[in-house]
Amino acid sequence: MADTHTPSYPVDQVNKVKRMHERGTYDHESVHAILDSASMCHVSYVIDGQPFCTPTLFWREGTKLYWHGSSASRMLRNQKEGEPVCLTVTHLDSFILARSGMHHSADYRSVMAFGHAKVITDTDEKHQALVSMVDRLFPNRTAGLREINSQEFKATTVIGMEIEKASAKVRAGGVADDEEDYALPIYAERLPVHVTIGKAEPCPRLIDGVERSEELQNIYPEGRRLDEALTEAYKTTYPA
Amino acid sequence: MADTHTPSYPVDQVNKVKRMHERGTYDHESVHAILDSASMCHVSYVIDGQPFCTPTLFWREGTKLYWHGSSASRMLRNQKEGEPVCLTVTHLDSFILARSGMHHSADYRSVMAFGHAKVITDTDEKHQALVSMVDRLFPNRTAGLREINSQEFKATTVIGMEIEKASAKVRAGGVADDEEDYALPIYAERLPVHVTIGKAEPCPRLIDGVERSEELQNIYPEGRRLDEALTEAYKTTYPA
Repeated sequence: MADTHTPSYPVDQVNKVKRMHERGTYDHESVHAILDSASMCHVSYVIDGQPFCTPTLFWREGTKLYWHGSSASRMLRNQKEGEPVCLTVTHLDSFILARSGMHHSADYRSVMAFGHAKVITDTDEKHQALVSMVDRLFPNRTAGLREINSQEFKATTVIGMEIEKASAKVRAGGVADDEEDYALPIYAERLPVHVTIGKAEPCPRLIDGVERSEELQNIYPEGRRLDEALTEAYKTTYPA
Repeated sequence: MADTHTPSYPVDQVNKVKRMHERGTYDHESVHAILDSASMCHVSYVIDGQPFCTPTLFWREGTKLYWHGSSASRMLRNQKEGEPVCLTVTHLDSFILARSGMHHSADYRSVMAFGHAKVITDTDEKHQALVSMVDRLFPNRTAGLREINSQEFKATTVIGMEIEKASAKVRAGGVADDEEDYALPIYAERLPVHVTIGKAEPCPRLIDGVERSEELQNIYPEGRRLDEALTEAYKTTYPA
């Protein structure tokens, strides 16, 4: 049971983890940790009964999720009216090669968050969101950028979704075979998958003397795990 | 324009890439290359008007996509009747740090595939699918595994979806600022993201003398790009 002092998202038939329910949690801490260590999500929405699943960058502020796009995009036009949405984040951590086909699996961490997507129309909230969108990834970066102009501001739509329900689902078990199968002469392994930062490629048209900031270098050095870097960037921009 | 000799998926308002349409393609070769270099997808479906977005492993056979799960899962129960589905695959390749907030972006490769999900009820097709599910990732592996039993066969549901429409969308441009912004003393870069194979962790309960196969070692050595490994595994199991 979750500690009753830990805030949790409400659970109902929409977000209850049904399969392998022991892998499911609903507390804010578990859900937010998975969200804040990611940059990309998949947003599902429905147009005329047809589901769409669009990958996009997103970020969290409290219990609200934000994403953005062109004001002309199909996804965003459809989400103006408070349409129901499911936003999913997944980290694939490994493949599991078991001794039977049945127990082949994967280690992963995922969150499904449910709510109603609304266009942010408040000018101040939208301005702040356009800052956070960049700074959530690259702390303090916006202050050094060329300022946004009114045409860009108008051309960009920001969507916000209060998380009404959410679940986190984690598998981290490694190989788990039927007990009698361990005696078989079959090779089995956990095969980790790593998502890491590559070597930064500075724009070839940089002005002389313009260099990568120490902050960027500290958070995004070559070879670091991306989920760790994103978590640190998040906590720098949104200190607890 | 696409070569007219290259088979393509039909284009209509559902799968036409509207935003940044120059990034969109529909030919089988482009769509399949992105699908076959991935193992995980996000499947969107609708229950009572509520969209769901579930991450799962999948694979392609011709113009058909397969995924599987427990016969008891909510996702699969809902997809028995030929429900409309959108299956999306995304590779995040880099973050783009531009000189303005507006031009911050990401390099990526993604596919959205649309169709109707149906449970595979034909016993032969289902048996073959349960083999391919493992062998698509790890060629020839099923032949060496403990055989599936009837209880496992019954407990597993395989879903198939003929790709009715699909689009591939790719951004690979690196930094692309407004021309006048290149003169500004602002740092900009392409920050690559790598998804790679980690060091295999053999099951601690292996029988003495049981070792990783040469085939597994060749396709999944430590440090290799995952998309390359998955593509090679795919082509080994499904030679052109």
